[in-house]
Amino acid sequence: MKRLKATIAYDGSGFVGYQIQPNARTVQLEIMKVLETMHKGRVVQVVASGRTDAKVHATGQVIHFDSEFSIPISGWLKALNVLLPEDIRVHSIEEVDASFHARYHTTGKIYRYKWDRSGIISPFTRNFMVHVKPSLDVEAMRDAAQALIGTHDFSSFCAANTAVVDKVRTIRRLDFEEHGNELHMVIEGTGFLYNMVRIIAGTLAEVGLGKRQADELEKIVAVIDRDAAGITAPAHGLYLESVMYGS
Amino acid sequence: MKRLKATIAYDGSGFVGYQIQPNARTVQLEIMKVLETMHKGRVVQVVASGRTDAKVHATGQVIHFDSEFSIPISGWLKALNVLLPEDIRVHSIEEVDASFHARYHTTGKIYRYKWDRSGIISPFTRNFMVHVKPSLDVEAMRDAAQALIGTHDFSSFCAANTAVVDKVRTIRRLDFEEHGNELHMVIEGTGFLYNMVRIIAGTLAEVGLGKRQADELEKIVAVIDRDAAGITAPAHGLYLESVMYGS
Repeated sequence: MKRLKATIAYDGSGFVGYQIQPNARTVQLEIMKVLETMHKGRVVQVVASGRTDAKVHATGQVIHFDSEFSIPISGWLKALNVLLPEDIRVHSIEEVDASFHARYHTTGKIYRYKWDRSGIISPFTRNFMVHVKPSLDVEAMRDAAQALIGTHDFSSFCAANTAVVDKVRTIRRLDFEEHGNELHMVIEGTGFLYNMVRIIAGTLAEVGLGKRQADELEKIVAVIDRDAAGITAPAHGLYLESVMYGS
Repeated sequence: MKRLKATIAYDGSGFVGYQIQPNARTVQLEIMKVLETMHKGRVVQVVASGRTDAKVHATGQVIHFDSEFSIPISGWLKALNVLLPEDIRVHSIEEVDASFHARYHTTGKIYRYKWDRSGIISPFTRNFMVHVKPSLDVEAMRDAAQALIGTHDFSSFCAANTAVVDKVRTIRRLDFEEHGNELHMVIEGTGFLYNMVRIIAGTLAEVGLGKRQADELEKIVAVIDRDAAGITAPAHGLYLESVMYGS
């Protein structure tokens, strides 16, 4: 038996999310269906670094699965990309130690959130970016973001119905990149709570739009109350960009 | 009554084409439905510069229609973009002389054809670019394209079942642009026969892939026979980029 680690990309538009659920199109099910076909009807479990919600995209999601096949890596890459639907692509695959675990061994993740500041959003990016006013104050957003960097209890930035008890997380990096009309928020952390990136994006966008002051962020973190933060930004602007393992 | 000229963009993925046909989602019908709603149930005819096929995109299609409304241009732009589905956007609108005709008065068109030369195509661009081998020889394609520039009988590059008699057209410009992994063919002409841009793209791609020699193009034009040229390249790589009027 060999353990294989694959880095995959998917367009979240056509999925109800990453994780299998009844009567719905999910990324995990599409991959498992392909592996089951390749393994003559045997179910092959697929483990991802974490789930992503409906409409959320990935450019660097990581999965692992086990197989007894001894086909070369290039053969795996080709076979999976031929058999998978076009909205999921495998970018790389490698054999890893049998102890590797895509979820338990993550040491960090990078997410990217994309806004389009065009006066009129392009019909070609409507599922891939969130439209905002061109006048967004990016400097104010950068200022506000400083209060989030570091280790904090992020309860204010976590969906209220979450079962997780320990809500302390570390944000290592929170940058804004401007690419023409596109504005990207790039956030790197040890791990993220449910909806955390989208609530951060939604709150910082409210700062950019002048609905909040940049200096409010420190207080929002301190009160440990989801209601203190801003809206949960729409799912289709979010990308899981990379997953880190090891130190 | 005022005549309005609008420049529109659409993602062709969700349409069977521009032109109205029974029981199918078309760009023309979506626009006419919105205008009918705005005009309290009165049918407003919409005339485009020309039709586009299923899956073909537009970034600069031009339409005209007549209305008795005396709302300002900015009001038109806002109302149409609120009422239209997100895969159609109006980029600009202006009042024109009542004699203006979006189809009859065109003096030129620019189309763009997009290929993706990535080793593995991105799930995000699968409906917007056509995947080709990274090794495509772009210089050979540029060489081959020279034989097409100018005024020729383009019968060899026209779908065989076309009713049009006069197949002489003028290509003013045929360039290749490289943007990272993307390769674009930009073609400007007085007018184009049915499938002409896609057959040119398909034939030049065959040159790039080494299936044909660049110096074959002159002969292909000369024989006036659709079978001499290459395949019709897939629809989803094609964009109607702009339509010219006047000299």
